[in-house]
Amino acid sequence: MNIQLDSQGRLKHFLGIEGLSRELLVEILDTAASLMPVNEKAVKKLPLLRGKTIVNLFFEPSTRTRTTFELAAKRLSADVLNFNINASSSSKGETLLDMLNNLEAMQCDMFVVRHDQAGAPFFMAQHVPPHISIVNAGDGRHEHPTQAMLDMFTIRQHKGDFSQLRVAIIGDILHSRVARSQIFALTTLGAAEVRVIAPFTLIPKGIENMGVTVFNRLKAGLKDVDVVMMLRIQRERMRSALLPSEHEYFQYYGLTEDLLMEVHPDAIVMHPGPINRGVEIESSVADGARSVILQQVTNGIAVRMAIMAMVLGRGHEGQSCHSS
Amino acid sequence: MNIQLDSQGRLKHFLGIEGLSRELLVEILDTAASLMPVNEKAVKKLPLLRGKTIVNLFFEPSTRTRTTFELAAKRLSADVLNFNINASSSSKGETLLDMLNNLEAMQCDMFVVRHDQAGAPFFMAQHVPPHISIVNAGDGRHEHPTQAMLDMFTIRQHKGDFSQLRVAIIGDILHSRVARSQIFALTTLGAAEVRVIAPFTLIPKGIENMGVTVFNRLKAGLKDVDVVMMLRIQRERMRSALLPSEHEYFQYYGLTEDLLMEVHPDAIVMHPGPINRGVEIESSVADGARSVILQQVTNGIAVRMAIMAMVLGRGHEGQSCHSS
Amino acid sequence: MNIQLDSQGRLKHFLGIEGLSRELLVEILDTAASLMPVNEKAVKKLPLLRGKTIVNLFFEPSTRTRTTFELAAKRLSADVLNFNINASSSSKGETLLDMLNNLEAMQCDMFVVRHDQAGAPFFMAQHVPPHISIVNAGDGRHEHPTQAMLDMFTIRQHKGDFSQLRVAIIGDILHSRVARSQIFALTTLGAAEVRVIAPFTLIPKGIENMGVTVFNRLKAGLKDVDVVMMLRIQRERMRSALLPSEHEYFQYYGLTEDLLMEVHPDAIVMHPGPINRGVEIESSVADGARSVILQQVTNGIAVRMAIMAMVLGRGHEGQSCHSS
Repeated sequence: MNIQLDSQGRLKHFLGIEGLSRELLVEILDTAASLMPVNEKAVKKLPLLRGKTIVNLFFEPSTRTRTTFELAAKRLSADVLNFNINASSSSKGETLLDMLNNLEAMQCDMFVVRHDQAGAPFFMAQHVPPHISIVNAGDGRHEHPTQAMLDMFTIRQHKGDFSQLRVAIIGDILHSRVARSQIFALTTLGAAEVRVIAPFTLIPKGIENMGVTVFNRLKAGLKDVDVVMMLRIQRERMRSALLPSEHEYFQYYGLTEDLLMEVHPDAIVMHPGPINRGVEIESSVADGARSVILQQVTNGIAVRMAIMAMVLGRGHEGQSCHSS
Repeated sequence: MNIQLDSQGRLKHFLGIEGLSRELLVEILDTAASLMPVNEKAVKKLPLLRGKTIVNLFFEPSTRTRTTFELAAKRLSADVLNFNINASSSSKGETLLDMLNNLEAMQCDMFVVRHDQAGAPFFMAQHVPPHISIVNAGDGRHEHPTQAMLDMFTIRQHKGDFSQLRVAIIGDILHSRVARSQIFALTTLGAAEVRVIAPFTLIPKGIENMGVTVFNRLKAGLKDVDVVMMLRIQRERMRSALLPSEHEYFQYYGLTEDLLMEVHPDAIVMHPGPINRGVEIESSVADGARSVILQQVTNGIAVRMAIMAMVLGRGHEGQSCHSS
Repeated sequence: MNIQLDSQGRLKHFLGIEGLSRELLVEILDTAASLMPVNEKAVKKLPLLRGKTIVNLFFEPSTRTRTTFELAAKRLSADVLNFNINASSSSKGETLLDMLNNLEAMQCDMFVVRHDQAGAPFFMAQHVPPHISIVNAGDGRHEHPTQAMLDMFTIRQHKGDFSQLRVAIIGDILHSRVARSQIFALTTLGAAEVRVIAPFTLIPKGIENMGVTVFNRLKAGLKDVDVVMMLRIQRERMRSALLPSEHEYFQYYGLTEDLLMEVHPDAIVMHPGPINRGVEIESSVADGARSVILQQVTNGIAVRMAIMAMVLGRGHEGQSCHSS
């Protein structure tokens, strides 16, 4: 039984795309679509999670992702607590489980967790009582499932159907939790072809088993694709032996106007942000007509609202707390 | 006249347990009971303090206590401002009174104050206009009255009546504002016997005058008690001459399963948190059947909601501000 | 066309007092007056900006100004995000425009901006889509227009009409964005005389062209004035050659009880806060009967609420976003 689902098959935690059904992913996309603002006058505030308390537990700094979760929660009328926990202070203090138990005892309903250790949100989901939900906001090199779902939402918005799509993911596949979640989502949703494009050193071994095609040269990999998904280059990794200099990287893997000659005429360009202009992407491409980068941000709010509403709005079977 | 009460004897500030009547303490406990969630579906959000602004003024860092006050305020629909003020920055800036006057001028209604100086909340209560309430969230070695009230709530929840109870408080009594507030609360509520258990060096002189019995050996002190109240060991004080090493402390004053043979068969074990596993308490005791440590946390929200609602919901006699 | 106004002449951004009409300034004051609490029982929370998201973008630290904007926004029922961005972190990260674009994409409605560069809010206003408003919370030495408007509100509250008023602004005029905004506001509202009083080194060249009279000696400058507006001395500038020592400054430009013999019998004393007691103002003056310093703080909430409500409540012509 999948720990992410309750006994009736509904989403209870959102830890990763791996193992989720196509139907469930589509349900998330449909729910998000229903939450999108129709226009500027649309009421953006909904009372769905009024009285609920959502805790952002960020063991890795991330203003951007934290902000989108905070906004999503507030637009659902939930109360939000933010905790930025650095590894050093948490190591000398109480244990992770003690902290979690205390927040549960304060009747918090959901933990949005970012952690540098793969599996941390899964560990938490195993240890919280049944009425509490965990949402993974990025764990180590494992998954970043809400990012992948907002990407899928954006693709569906522009392309409608996945079954005819050729999609290329470009960049540091080896270290990228975003790429892993994207690959799981695209293959589950039935994309015709998923390509990964990166230097040998940045491709994990055996990735072909995930149902992707590997390209080492950008030009060849971009040929006729419908969707170009850039990954962010972690500049702090640039100094390691694995990655070339920024200048070299851009020369071989930077997305330029010239290279866009290779893609399908209607192709879109995506990036999870924040972008490094002139490193992984040329400015004119980031700001160009094919770019849907800012739409991804907008969609990210709706997708996170959808996931939060789904995991907390399941009705209430199985809980036993606070009634003693 | 007690500065904590208004002219009609209602709670106006909450600065310390000392000097409050048994009736008032019981009223706090009863109000908190009415705010406890009955079960998971219970509406946790109440409009009692809608339009009120509550300021957390923390001159000493404390994520946990600050969070419980913030949650309590939000569940009463108040707006919350958090200020973490370190001594160095406040010393070069404006005076404490100027800061307080400015926040009052912004029409804030309540200050929840933690300060390393005993008496700071009392000083503030003397200087704010009549419609503003001060709540003490811990001042120096003086009092931590909301902690004591959530402890009393938890004891009453399990034991009903105080008059037959033997209670032991164990740990660094000398430096503990929690112990002081607990002793005042227990004696006011009529506990049969209040014991303090600590090494000679950690017992303040003349504590017998507070109506407690002193024990230096843990085993003897635990004999037949109904409630075991552990204090948190401040590890930073471990290096001082007053306290032995962690290992030694645990050997003489750590609460173990073996020692629980001494207590009454229905005794409960309490701790204000966060716990130092293996220093003042054995893990199996903290997580054991007698432990009510996490219930204390849950109760802490209800008790703080009760106190906030009582001091701000008194009706409005005597104020003269903002009407000029 | 003034970038601060929309096509129908209504306030769209609030970047500076310069260039705004007397009618518009009066409209701000009237709107603020309607938002003032009548008495303690008055409902302070209004639903005017429910569903709106307001972002405090502070590139310069300022707890006080940020707090008043946050309170103003919350009392209008808006959601608030706070970003304290230090120059070093923003320089290595994304560009200012990329950050702005991302926050827009998250459907934020208003940016309250403090920046050490003069013109930064103006730059932002040029680059945001039509439905987004920028409010200047202080930019370099340029303007601090909400401070000036709360000052005008306070003057009108006490004096009614501007046309007969003699006003003196005292302090570091050269570096003061507050002084610049005050001068624009006072001259636009038709004050009879606006004086600036400072040492030669702290008077900008050509300031007479702004319609003010320059005084270098405090006693002469204060003669018969109706309003005394002190500026805050930036102590960190004290060490530079421009400013004398604190002791010397107070000797020549500190406002004392004795000097108040010179002013009109009904004169009021103002200060933007936080005050440096004994540096630019004697304690007994700051706390004296003429001082309206704390009323300025209270008025600041109402004035900021008014400006926020005006720029976001214009109705919705001209926007095209989020409807794709």
